[in-house]
Formats: sequence, structure tokens, C-alpha cells
Amino acid sequence: MRIGKVIGTVVATQKTERLKGAKLLIVQELTVEAQPTSTFVVCMDAVGAGYGDVVLTCAGSSARLTSVTETAPVDATIIGIVDTVERDGEVVFQKGAEA
Amino acid sequence: MRIGKVIGTVVATQKTERLKGAKLLIVQELTVEAQPTSTFVVCMDAVGAGYGDVVLTCAGSSARLTSVTETAPVDATIIGIVDTVERDGEVVFQKGAEA
Amino acid sequence: MRIGKVIGTVVATQKTERLKGAKLLIVQELTVEAQPTSTFVVCMDAVGAGYGDVVLTCAGSSARLTSVTETAPVDATIIGIVDTVERDGEVVFQKGAEA
Amino acid sequence: MRIGKVIGTVVATQKTERLKGAKLLIVQELTVEAQPTSTFVVCMDAVGAGYGDVVLTCAGSSARLTSVTETAPVDATIIGIVDTVERDGEVVFQKGAEA
Amino acid sequence: MRIGKVIGTVVATQKTERLKGAKLLIVQELTVEAQPTSTFVVCMDAVGAGYGDVVLTCAGSSARLTSVTETAPVDATIIGIVDTVERDGEVVFQKGAEA
Repeated sequence: MRIGKVIGTVVATQKTERLKGAKLLIVQELTVEAQPTSTFVVCMDAVGAGYGDVVLTCAGSSARLTSVTETAPVDATIIGIVDTVERDGEVVFQKGAEA
Repeated sequence: MRIGKVIGTVVATQKTERLKGAKLLIVQELTVEAQPTSTFVVCMDAVGAGYGDVVLTCAGSSARLTSVTETAPVDATIIGIVDTVERDGEVVFQKGAEA
Repeated sequence: MRIGKVIGTVVATQKTERLKGAKLLIVQELTVEAQPTSTFVVCMDAVGAGYGDVVLTCAGSSARLTSVTETAPVDATIIGIVDTVERDGEVVFQKGAEA
Repeated sequence: MRIGKVIGTVVATQKTERLKGAKLLIVQELTVEAQPTSTFVVCMDAVGAGYGDVVLTCAGSSARLTSVTETAPVDATIIGIVDTVERDGEVVFQKGAEA
Repeated sequence: MRIGKVIGTVVATQKTERLKGAKLLIVQELTVEAQPTSTFVVCMDAVGAGYGDVVLTCAGSSARLTSVTETAPVDATIIGIVDTVERDGEVVFQKGAEA
């Protein structure tokens, strides 16, 4: 899985049937120190994430293993909202404590 | 999923059986600001996309989860036509408003 | 899917059972203008491709969705022989018209 | 599969149902000589790995083929704790012998 | 599929159940001219490969489609031992003829 930050949304009214009602968020991949990278992915949201949230994303066929994505043509899903990231014993990200 | 722009077509008359009738479009991957990159993928079209459209693409096994691709040997499918892309509260792409 | 050119073959007499009889071709990935890149993949051939052909390749689990690959341990298959590639209204590759 | 080192943890209380109870570890990919790289992946742990362990990770759909991950939306799982890595007849990593 | 060379082994006594008895080899990816690259992958062996062998590897879900890997959490398998690689009509690798 990857750690990313929700930075935007995509709207597509003309889409394939099993994608109807999908909430599509743009997630910027973060480094393990929660710093932004130049890599982005459009994810379907399975956990009620919102703008600015640091999230956990799952790619590939496993992206379909949530109640909201199970028959959808999705290759990336937000599967969790991150509370803390700890590296080498140090908290490098804590929800609500961002600068 | 990725955001891309339809820039061309591929025609292959000699092809594997489950690909018969497939419409194959060349999609140039875009950045999150809807700027072109040097990455391209050939996609099967599931939504009636056309030249110049900004589209949403799905890769991997999930690319088969549309009514037109379900038994086809495809690893990338156009699953939506993008209306708007919003980043950090700003609309960076709007269909019909391209320069 | 990707566009590539058949540039060689791989022979392996000692191989896993479901690969017996497989024709293994080396495919050099091409840019969208049909120019060579430094990326290569070994593909199982499902369409009778030969040396020099520009082909369409499919990767991942979908590579198994042809009559010749369906139970084989293959992650890349040649699924079509390309006749034309058109970009921005211009034909950038046409079979039989190569220099 | 890849070889990596456990360098941290991710906590996400709000997550998709089939991820409840999952232990999420940050794994830094290593070179074949067991040297750190700048690539990281968040893995679900299937073997009781801990901080500092050198581990074997599996990605993609196969990441679900353990008793703890089988219905979970995971794309990367720790499937083993590495004892030794041998390259060209030389032991380049041995558990417990790290500097 | 990819062409690689077996350069080492990984031993992991503490591992997930369906990996018991697995022979794990380190495979260095080769170029199409059979020259070494800096990319490595740990593969389960399905064909009795040994140190120094040039092999054919399969990644992703198809890596499970051999009798020894079918229920295992593996994302890369050695599926053949390469005898010859021919590029542009020239033999660039022949087993037993290495310098």
C-alpha cells in the first residue's frame, strides 16, 4: 500500500456503468516522511476521505475488495485515513498536528 | 486510475478473437494539472470517447470490468470522460474550456 | 496495451509444463511514433506474429485471455498485428510502408 | 518478491472493514546486497515481523494468499523473515550479524 | 516475461504457511543482449534452476500457474531455463557458450 494526500477531485458524468456514484479523489503520493512527491493517482474512496486527508491507498485487483468497489473497474482505492506514521521510533506524521 | 488525453488510434485487423470489434485508442497520460507527459498507453474504449477527449483510464485486471471488455485480453480501458479536474480548490481542467 | 516490434526469439527446452509448445518472442517497446525504445519484454504469441512485425501486446492477468495462453504462466502476450498507428490525424506507422 | 527492512508503522483507525485488526508496517526496499534504497511500501504483516527485521515481501494479488490477508484489500504482504541472503557464493546478509 | 540470471539465494525459515519448502532464488534481470542490469527480483523456482543459469521469469498472478506455485503467495516465478536468445537473426546468448 502507499501513503498519499487527497489534493483534489475528478468529475466524469459520462462513465462506465459500474462506476456510477463513485467518488473519485486525486491522491498525491507521499514519502515515508509524509513529504509530497510528483506522483499522483486517481482513487475511488471507500472510507469517507476528504480534501487534505493523509490516506492509505491500495492498487491492483485488491482495490476491489471493499464494499463500495467490489464490482467496479477501479485499480486504486483509498482504504484508510492515516492517524500516525512512525519511522525509526519517531512520529513523522500525526493527524491534526500538521503545520 | 489515470487521467489522459485521446491522441490517436491503432488499427490491427489480425488479432486475437476476443478483441474483435474493439476500438483501440492511444491515450497520452496527463499530469494532475492536465499537462501532457511522454507516457502513452493503448486503451480499449468503454464509453464512446473520441479524439481530444480527456479521459479516465483503468489498468490491470479491473480494465475488464466493463460490459465491452469483460472477456477481452485488455490491460487498460477508458472508463470515463472527464468533465472537471479540481486541485487544491482550483479547477485545472474543464471540458469545453480548453485553450 | 503497448505497441512493440518483434526483434527476436527465446528458446527454453526445460520449462514449466503449461508452457510447452509456447512460441516466445522478444518485443521491443515502441513510442507512439513507432520509434524504438530500450524496453523489451518476452511475449507469448497468440496471433502468428513474425520477425519485424509491429504488434499490440497485453500484460498482466489479461495476457491469459487468448485461446493459446489461457492456462499458461504468461504475463505478456502478443494479441494483434498492427496495421496502422494514427496520431493527431497523421499516420505515423503503416504496415508494409516501413523504410 | 522483494527484500526489505521494517522501518516503521502506520496507524489508521478509520479504515475499510476487511482491514480491521491489520498490522501495517513500512518496509524499505533493499538492494540484493541488503543496502537501503529510497523505495518504500506499506505491507500487511503475515509472519509476526518487527522493527528492524529484514523481510521478504510479495506484491499484487498474491499478497492475499496468506491466512491473515485472504479477503483483505492489500497489495503488499510480508511473507517471510529473512535469515540469509547469499550472492555469488558470498553471504551478504545474515540475521543477527548486522553491524 | 523477463530474462534473468540466477545469482543467489534467500533463506527464510519463519514464513507464511503456503511458502513452506519453497526454493527462493535471486534473479538479476538481463538486457535482451544478455547483459546484467541493476534490477533484481526474488523468484520461486518451478523448473530446477541453479546458480548461473539464464532463466525466463513470469511476474504477477500468472506466477502462480505452475504445479509448485499454484496456491503460494508468490509474485515472480522461474518458468524456464533459457537455451538461446536470438536478436535480429544473431544468437546473443547460448547456454554453455558463456565466456
